[in-house]
Amino acid sequence: MPPRSKKPKMTEAIAKNEKCINTIRALAADTVRKANSGHPGAPMGCAPMAHLLWSEVMNYNPANPKWSNRDRFVLSNGHACALQYIMLHLTGYDSVSMDDLKAFRQLNSATPGHPENFHTAGIEVSTGPLGQGISNAVGLAIAETHLAAKFNKDGLDIVDHHTFVICGDGCLQEGVASESCSLAGHLQLGKLIVLYDDNDITIDGSTELSFSEDVGKRFQAYGWHVQSVDNGDSADLSKLQAAIAKAKTSSSPSLIKVKTRIGFGSQMEGTAKVHGSPLAPEDIVQLKQKFGMDPEKFFDVPEDVYAHFHERKDQGVLLEKEWNALFDKYKAAYPELASDFERLQKGELPAGWEDTLPKFTPESKGEGTRKYSGACLGPLVDKIPELLGGSADLTPSNNTRVKGNEINYSAADRGGRYVRYGVREHGMAAICNGLAAHGGIIPYCATFLVFTGYCLGSVRLSALSKLRVIYVMTHDSIGLGEDGPTHQPVETLATVRAIPNMNVIRPADGNETAGAYMSALPRQDGPTILAFSRQTCPNLPGTSAEKVLKGAYILSDEPSAKVILTGSGSEVALCVKAAEALKAAGIAARVVSFPSFNLFEDQDSAYRASVFPKGVPVLSVEASVAQGWHKYSHGQVCMKSYGKSGPGGEVFKHFGFNVDNVVEKAKKLIDFYPNGAPDLSAPF
Amino acid sequence: MPPRSKKPKMTEAIAKNEKCINTIRALAADTVRKANSGHPGAPMGCAPMAHLLWSEVMNYNPANPKWSNRDRFVLSNGHACALQYIMLHLTGYDSVSMDDLKAFRQLNSATPGHPENFHTAGIEVSTGPLGQGISNAVGLAIAETHLAAKFNKDGLDIVDHHTFVICGDGCLQEGVASESCSLAGHLQLGKLIVLYDDNDITIDGSTELSFSEDVGKRFQAYGWHVQSVDNGDSADLSKLQAAIAKAKTSSSPSLIKVKTRIGFGSQMEGTAKVHGSPLAPEDIVQLKQKFGMDPEKFFDVPEDVYAHFHERKDQGVLLEKEWNALFDKYKAAYPELASDFERLQKGELPAGWEDTLPKFTPESKGEGTRKYSGACLGPLVDKIPELLGGSADLTPSNNTRVKGNEINYSAADRGGRYVRYGVREHGMAAICNGLAAHGGIIPYCATFLVFTGYCLGSVRLSALSKLRVIYVMTHDSIGLGEDGPTHQPVETLATVRAIPNMNVIRPADGNETAGAYMSALPRQDGPTILAFSRQTCPNLPGTSAEKVLKGAYILSDEPSAKVILTGSGSEVALCVKAAEALKAAGIAARVVSFPSFNLFEDQDSAYRASVFPKGVPVLSVEASVAQGWHKYSHGQVCMKSYGKSGPGGEVFKHFGFNVDNVVEKAKKLIDFYPNGAPDLSAPF
Ligand SMILES: [Ca+2]
Ligand SMILES: [Ca+2]
Repeated sequence: MPPRSKKPKMTEAIAKNEKCINTIRALAADTVRKANSGHPGAPMGCAPMAHLLWSEVMNYNPANPKWSNRDRFVLSNGHACALQYIMLHLTGYDSVSMDDLKAFRQLNSATPGHPENFHTAGIEVSTGPLGQGISNAVGLAIAETHLAAKFNKDGLDIVDHHTFVICGDGCLQEGVASESCSLAGHLQLGKLIVLYDDNDITIDGSTELSFSEDVGKRFQAYGWHVQSVDNGDSADLSKLQAAIAKAKTSSSPSLIKVKTRIGFGSQMEGTAKVHGSPLAPEDIVQLKQKFGMDPEKFFDVPEDVYAHFHERKDQGVLLEKEWNALFDKYKAAYPELASDFERLQKGELPAGWEDTLPKFTPESKGEGTRKYSGACLGPLVDKIPELLGGSADLTPSNNTRVKGNEINYSAADRGGRYVRYGVREHGMAAICNGLAAHGGIIPYCATFLVFTGYCLGSVRLSALSKLRVIYVMTHDSIGLGEDGPTHQPVETLATVRAIPNMNVIRPADGNETAGAYMSALPRQDGPTILAFSRQTCPNLPGTSAEKVLKGAYILSDEPSAKVILTGSGSEVALCVKAAEALKAAGIAARVVSFPSFNLFEDQDSAYRASVFPKGVPVLSVEASVAQGWHKYSHGQVCMKSYGKSGPGGEVFKHFGFNVDNVVEKAKKLIDFYPNGAPDLSAPF
Repeated sequence: MPPRSKKPKMTEAIAKNEKCINTIRALAADTVRKANSGHPGAPMGCAPMAHLLWSEVMNYNPANPKWSNRDRFVLSNGHACALQYIMLHLTGYDSVSMDDLKAFRQLNSATPGHPENFHTAGIEVSTGPLGQGISNAVGLAIAETHLAAKFNKDGLDIVDHHTFVICGDGCLQEGVASESCSLAGHLQLGKLIVLYDDNDITIDGSTELSFSEDVGKRFQAYGWHVQSVDNGDSADLSKLQAAIAKAKTSSSPSLIKVKTRIGFGSQMEGTAKVHGSPLAPEDIVQLKQKFGMDPEKFFDVPEDVYAHFHERKDQGVLLEKEWNALFDKYKAAYPELASDFERLQKGELPAGWEDTLPKFTPESKGEGTRKYSGACLGPLVDKIPELLGGSADLTPSNNTRVKGNEINYSAADRGGRYVRYGVREHGMAAICNGLAAHGGIIPYCATFLVFTGYCLGSVRLSALSKLRVIYVMTHDSIGLGEDGPTHQPVETLATVRAIPNMNVIRPADGNETAGAYMSALPRQDGPTILAFSRQTCPNLPGTSAEKVLKGAYILSDEPSAKVILTGSGSEVALCVKAAEALKAAGIAARVVSFPSFNLFEDQDSAYRASVFPKGVPVLSVEASVAQGWHKYSHGQVCMKSYGKSGPGGEVFKHFGFNVDNVVEKAKKLIDFYPNGAPDLSAPF
């Protein structure tokens, strides 16, 4: 270990810092040790920057973690969450008591192994999967600028906060962070300030093993303001303070490289060994002795340390009070805007929004459902000002830019309502999580359905984190045709249907597309994936927006139907045609349109049994793998391989998505069950 | 449109270049027009660089697209594949005739909408999903250096080729490319040369909309050698030629920014309009006139243009002949190495490799299956020199670095057999696709199972492209415990099981882990995902490696079993215990270990019926969502939500993965079907 540089002159302020910082470090060691699980290294290394942020830099109110104008803090290296819980506790958030720290990583505790926004008040976004937090922060920062542009008036800046991030090497190696940070530079998000815990260590060991790039130069290339602070372990915080002050004046997003030693104070400081396991008891003893603390005491917070942070709690109450006074003035001057702002804070939609949705009849022109989606988005964007759209460079294909949001959100125009995300699917999804987590915005974003595979890490977190993000995923199947199997999803519906708390809808026509938005928009506690087609979907008799909310419904029927044909999207029209052909052959068939598994599963058993009565064989028809359909159907017309390049209609036929094949399979199914089909319902 | 710069002096060479280049451009316009679908812009813009590469730069043999020492070419902007097909045709590959060009993007043609390595000889990797190709190329370049280090001897460089890439803006915006290129710089892959078609246009319009970063500076930050060529549209190729020559001498990977105009020659050149739709017929007329070609002729290749490229075909034969002579010398001097080299080219494993796998008994110490995996990898790495391991910075958790591959692959040691991928899951998977596509290497790579969501774009392409990549995915369920729901996969098994041509195995104990490798390693035409646990899996009586290859098998049985308990991984031991408890309660139960859906589906119906006989209710027990299980089981003990942070054993119990609950559910199921359970087999 190289010799430690001489301690700075111990002014009173520095001495106080040191006491607070070492208390945080010792608490981190105790918290992880007690749990016998977790990551002490990063909390101990990041204690000085955390102390500075919570003591002097950030505006927040522990008494109201949801105060709209708080600075947003994101711990992108979420494994360091002991640090975040400690700061929440010290500054007096009700959500984290000392007992909660002692229950770190225990079942049902307030202090899970990675920060969970939906579980612990004061946590803005769920982090841990690396690169996500810093990307969420880009969304938080976009949200701030956009809402400021929309609401702020001269002298009445009701939206005016910063977004602070702590991140480690891991986050900066992740592609999702590269995408988001490139866009953040392009958009010149000056109020985004990232403290990079530059400690030369990752799980595998030294960053020299895999990460020798010049991170600062890379961020400069993105258009960021980059600074370095060489004494990140020190209790003399003046350099870090100055860097943050400078960052605040920059019109670019800021990266501050803060040189630290992971696990500062441990006998293993500066090594990967201190990353992911508790310190040995004797290491904690020597650490506390080195820090001048009593090694016999655990979870010890000196009174003056509590007193220091509780001042910030009192100050937080004052900050919100001041803001409330400002908002009262604002309300008096701009009552309509103020009431809209209040509505946004509650996440409520404007009254009557559903009425703007277009209605379709069988005479309406048949289009791909992506075009019906565009037709829905037009009036929705008009009526719901909090919709902020965008696409990962597929705008003309996704039909997501409509009259009403044609102006791009940009550094020059923060009021623009369309984000050009570039070819950055993962970054886009992570940014949308940040936009939704901020509040005041309902983000929708778009790419091809197959490229869900590029952003699944963030899509999963939308669902886990209960965020209202609307994914407009077009080109939903082999029906897209010529682009071929690299672009044709065959498994993606199964992928997204498997995600807990994900609403997945694949509408069959115009009315069902309107219904898909009716389901997605009011859903405050989770995301929705809308799967739209490139291929034409005629408008079918009997569809309606409202019925989509049931998940599945009888579209057409015959007395004593011998078979039920069901499917989603463009295959519903095929089922209708096949049912007609069966009728012509003297076989009565029911057609069930099935746009959403999860919505159907929310229905009561009586309704479900009315749609799929016992004994009637069910043939599902979907240009997707069968996985998931066995729960509902006795036979499947499905994809068993990847698709092929060719005109969409020919590809459909090639893989058996044609009337003849569906009729043949329906007949086979009827013959296979002379005594009625088996009951697929289960006891639990 | 700005005025075109003056034409360079028309030397004979330049005139010839121009004729070739314009022929390529016109062919691209005709090909896309005839298909009435596709992307003319990039092929027309990239025609000069393609002409130079195929005419003067690259070593290849159209008569043998699989010649091992060929330069590898990757079209990372795969939508430009008309260009690649045209070059294959002009240089005389059998795989692409003129008729094939005329059948571009038609069903079952040799010329699908994006390049497919498994479909068209001469295509190295399947591209189109942006960022993948350039990342595959990093793998191709690693493979070359590694095989060179292994096999080359003084004066006998049997492995000595370059990897060339053409890519566009889209590829460079993708995070997967950022990850791979950062690693490529770190690894100093000097024989990787990327031509960046820098045309300021993406689908959405100008790159100014979303992509204003300094790409060159970013790549310098990664450690790349960066050059610019300002006249990428010119037939005077001297600048590009010089840049490539210089790139070849650099010990760093090279990026050459080539300024071009998309759709060069079209009336819409330089705009996004020319990206993804055929040119209008009248536009093609004016283009051919401008180029001095007959506008009445379509798919026209002047004789001297053919003659020019066919010289390269002849030269290719000579190149391989020379190499064969070299290899003969090599064989004489190093017969064993030579025979190993030949074995690798065939993709065959060394004889007797299976015998090295460890065997376990119920007395063997119980461990997480990740540890059994480590115990298998030890002898496998010893026996199979072509195994090249790695992890995305989770080496100590993935148990992937073992005796035999402890030396890191690095710029300093190309013979090292362990790649430190850094926290770059998507890049890692894409690089492994390149390693596998190169030949001579079997890559395995590792992360946590849940982070499949970070790399699914590349994982899908492993399967589509039929590449032998082995994914070692540990921490397979809520059983990982304290890290909590951000790290606990609950849907990921369903995600990967839905992927066509993906082999997915979740073994129950040591012997099944050995069986998982027995299935994965010989699989030449596709990838395998191995899901391993952190939680302890005791070694069970009755398991064997060979039985894993059946996908599912009877682990324990009772005469006239009233119920079948089945599951995978750590839940098999739970099934065994529950069966014992049922027996104690007088209820006979069979236990079926079910490590792999896809392997079971490969078995004949008699075998399948012997495992799951008609009428006996099946209860599946897996700490994963039920999706997919309804095909085999009548009831499911499964996850219906995300997991929770807490000690793994407690989390398991909390979600019902305990003997009491399994016994209770089994009894319920038996009671629910007094007359036998319904038959789940279907007529098709
Ligand atoms: Ca680090
Ligand atoms: Ca471009």
